Amino acid sequence: MATNRQWLLSSRPTGEPTVDDFESIEADVPTPGPREVLVETEYLSVDPYMRGRMRDAESYAEPWDVGDPMRAAVVGSVVESNHPSFEAGDSVVGDLLWAEYAVADGADLRRVDPDRGPVSTAVGVLGMPGVTAYFGMTDVVEPTAGDTVVVSGAAGAVGSVAGQIAALSGCRVVGIAGTDEKTAWLESIGFDAAVNYETEDVPSALGDHCPDGVDAYFDNVGGPITDAVWSLLNVRATVAVCGQISTYNATETPTGPRKLMRLIQSRARVEGFLVRDYEGRWDEALDRLSAWVDRGDVAYRETVVEGFERAPEAFLGLFEGANVGKQLVRVGGS
Amino acid sequence: MATNRQWLLSSRPTGEPTVDDFESIEADVPTPGPREVLVETEYLSVDPYMRGRMRDAESYAEPWDVGDPMRAAVVGSVVESNHPSFEAGDSVVGDLLWAEYAVADGADLRRVDPDRGPVSTAVGVLGMPGVTAYFGMTDVVEPTAGDTVVVSGAAGAVGSVAGQIAALSGCRVVGIAGTDEKTAWLESIGFDAAVNYETEDVPSALGDHCPDGVDAYFDNVGGPITDAVWSLLNVRATVAVCGQISTYNATETPTGPRKLMRLIQSRARVEGFLVRDYEGRWDEALDRLSAWVDRGDVAYRETVVEGFERAPEAFLGLFEGANVGKQLVRVGGS
Repeated sequence: MATNRQWLLSSRPTGEPTVDDFESIEADVPTPGPREVLVETEYLSVDPYMRGRMRDAESYAEPWDVGDPMRAAVVGSVVESNHPSFEAGDSVVGDLLWAEYAVADGADLRRVDPDRGPVSTAVGVLGMPGVTAYFGMTDVVEPTAGDTVVVSGAAGAVGSVAGQIAALSGCRVVGIAGTDEKTAWLESIGFDAAVNYETEDVPSALGDHCPDGVDAYFDNVGGPITDAVWSLLNVRATVAVCGQISTYNATETPTGPRKLMRLIQSRARVEGFLVRDYEGRWDEALDRLSAWVDRGDVAYRETVVEGFERAPEAFLGLFEGANVGKQLVRVGGS
Repeated sequence: MATNRQWLLSSRPTGEPTVDDFESIEADVPTPGPREVLVETEYLSVDPYMRGRMRDAESYAEPWDVGDPMRAAVVGSVVESNHPSFEAGDSVVGDLLWAEYAVADGADLRRVDPDRGPVSTAVGVLGMPGVTAYFGMTDVVEPTAGDTVVVSGAAGAVGSVAGQIAALSGCRVVGIAGTDEKTAWLESIGFDAAVNYETEDVPSALGDHCPDGVDAYFDNVGGPITDAVWSLLNVRATVAVCGQISTYNATETPTGPRKLMRLIQSRARVEGFLVRDYEGRWDEALDRLSAWVDRGDVAYRETVVEGFERAPEAFLGLFEGANVGKQLVRVGGS
């Protein structure tokens, strides 16, 4: 029987995780039970939220125990199916494992149509990150045409889609990202301007690019970048708090200026959200996103690390901003 | 002609203001022009937001210039009227001066019915503070019956009313205040519990009094008290940011823990508001508040400093928590 490599959480990282926090084991390829499906991983998605699950602390996601297999959104192909909805060879996506093979109840898998484009998009622009961007922008931020919208983490899988949705709504969109490659890409896909936070002074660059202030902010990063955006919030501005990646590896709660007075001055609304609260509306988002992607209205990029063994490295790269667009690990498949 | 004492801003305070930042002058009693009314001050209201107007910095209220007269909500009696809506002897309320006499356009004054109760309430429970509490609680926080609602600055003019409105809505209400006298008062007027932040550990006391977490928070103070409340926010919690008195005298922006991740975990909504945005609905609030006060459903207290010359002292006391309920300066009148 073929072996099945998988990654476990071997220790809880303190601060920045390292490859030593992951352990690779070999196990047997599992056998699907009744109504279960055996899936061979083709693309494994690494996402910033996973950092929270490595922590033994209150979070919106259940913490993983040390020794547990790492979980991930996976696109793969069906090897064996005991579920009537799937047969061998089907492309599927689901919440599976950092593993070469995994079984899942067929009810927890979603079919991916390979004719619609690269199957990898099922964990990117047409998956959780895209759906997050869609609801965050259309349901939480709700900008209107003419608004100035700022997106932090703008070149990531979520931010890049969020900004393009705002641009499609007729907004002026300013992205914040960490390399010139990223800002150039953003400006090529509909962002009106992009700030490189590594080389520019964010408060002054934002001031230049947002001469009429900021009407809406899609926040993926938190920290000083968010401080700078809050300082520009207009009256009745809206802020969607999607992520705070700048704080995920902190060993103690980072401190920063107390900015709530800004919310009184601006009568702004700040709202946190989780895409899982929109589970019942997932298809609505996918329909819209697919149509935009098909028409070329929403562009996407993927950063692909080749090889199952490099999954931890790909994950750690997220905190270095190594990815442009969606970070994937290509594991196998055809 | 009678003299008219008034207070000017004599210097911009750095940090905590002192009595030396105010200058008392004597001027002639002004003569009302066409459609103007001469008002003799009976009660002068001092309010925390005035601290912002003493600062030469961005705020929601226009800064006062050094040498300018201090402005305040005033209840007084009409001495002379050139406006058809008012005649000598009428009780009125308006945005006037820290002065014994002031003139105003009759259109900017509101009649106070002395038969409805003490005229001083026109700058308290039936004035700006009460209306602020009303809209903050009913329009921004919007708690529903059974919710746990926390109010900081709970024994102040706004907080005490806000908490009682939540209690009338069937909520469990927990107040935070700074003396045992205040917490005892709050528990006597419908708060289910009250925490003395000077003598108790706020996080643990709040935990005790909010065993099911916090569904709504009416924030008047900011700082570490607000940090403690945010840590308890439930899913879909709502936060109204009304004031941040703990930061008003800071010379530099105070720092504190970055808590935005809490908003993602809780999917909470945080919204700043200003009562002036509700000008068109002022009567709606006064009608409700008057009915509650008449029925004894909303209790109020006033802390009255006697004597025009003590107005700065009364104002400075706000930042020491010297007031229980509404802080007033009694200037004259019958």
